[in-house]
Amino acid sequence: MKVINEYITLSTNGDGDLIDLTGHLRNILGNSTLSNGIMTVFVIGSTAAITTFEYESGLIKDMKELYEELAPYGKNYFHNQTWGDGNGFSHVRAALQGPSLTIPFDNGALLLGTWQQVVLADFDNRHRNRKVAVNLIGE
Amino acid sequence: MKVINEYITLSTNGDGDLIDLTGHLRNILGNSTLSNGIMTVFVIGSTAAITTFEYESGLIKDMKELYEELAPYGKNYFHNQTWGDGNGFSHVRAALQGPSLTIPFDNGALLLGTWQQVVLADFDNRHRNRKVAVNLIGE
Amino acid sequence: MKVINEYITLSTNGDGDLIDLTGHLRNILGNSTLSNGIMTVFVIGSTAAITTFEYESGLIKDMKELYEELAPYGKNYFHNQTWGDGNGFSHVRAALQGPSLTIPFDNGALLLGTWQQVVLADFDNRHRNRKVAVNLIGE
Repeated sequence: MKVINEYITLSTNGDGDLIDLTGHLRNILGNSTLSNGIMTVFVIGSTAAITTFEYESGLIKDMKELYEELAPYGKNYFHNQTWGDGNGFSHVRAALQGPSLTIPFDNGALLLGTWQQVVLADFDNRHRNRKVAVNLIGE
Repeated sequence: MKVINEYITLSTNGDGDLIDLTGHLRNILGNSTLSNGIMTVFVIGSTAAITTFEYESGLIKDMKELYEELAPYGKNYFHNQTWGDGNGFSHVRAALQGPSLTIPFDNGALLLGTWQQVVLADFDNRHRNRKVAVNLIGE
Repeated sequence: MKVINEYITLSTNGDGDLIDLTGHLRNILGNSTLSNGIMTVFVIGSTAAITTFEYESGLIKDMKELYEELAPYGKNYFHNQTWGDGNGFSHVRAALQGPSLTIPFDNGALLLGTWQQVVLADFDNRHRNRKVAVNLIGE
């Protein structure tokens, strides 16, 4: 049994940027010597989140609409009065969606569906350099 | 320390079917030789999700109403234009709720509350054969 | 590789009480002998949830507003007819937000952002004594 910590660093556009991490995650698993266990994907920061969905252009638009309905960009957030950086909507969306996902792997393969990609949602209102922690535990 | 991958396969009705997995999960833990660790429950596919709630008929209706309010069945989703299968609402609901849950166990028992069941939400618009991955790590 | 189960017990005010657990979690990690692995935080019970956000007074109000919009206190929930305890809104909010979070740690430190705190949301409509399970796996 081994534990491995890896990181994905990437530059985002912010503003609800939705980025497919699946290829990165498959590479990390492939480069480890592990075949059975779990992978935890955790985005560091309070204005981004992790989830899974079918990464195609229609659904990408649908997810952006959902987040806008749940926590509208133009709403008057109390958080904006604290820091004046205008990204209250980003924080609220990130907290609701959540920063973390744990995916089992078996026989060297992540147990994702064919149409199920792991997606980083960057809800911030500006370009960010993001760091995603990827932890593997298994054998 | 050991790692075990198990699977639950089950047939669902789709259309927001909410299925209590707790008994299956307790059996899997009981059949392992593990007493302390974590169980990760992950539904494979992009139109289903995992959460916990009190599995009783009133709350089951309340959860269905919530999902309908958050991502209405009849909305015109961009995803529907991609594939024409009419289940855009299913994908959006699944992405928001999330596919994964990790539950600690101690002294051979899952650390769930008395009124806290683990529930598979199948949001698809048709019958599906579902596979839920259940990973145990512990000793 | 080791597995450790710890618990945080705390008294809450209910009614959407949002409590910062980060200090407790750092203490648990510090008191273990582990430097690399994952920490799973799981709230036992069906009317509370775990997430991360920047724990400051403005955002605390924003999150309370979000939960009220998603599952209003005064709505007529079916669950309230089952038990008559009037906390249907609490159950619905808890199920949507989810009870669990898994955070990697590396070199003895939880991989949280500077402005990213781990928060217990107690959605119940009364004071509760809460038990949060904290599981560490690593080396």
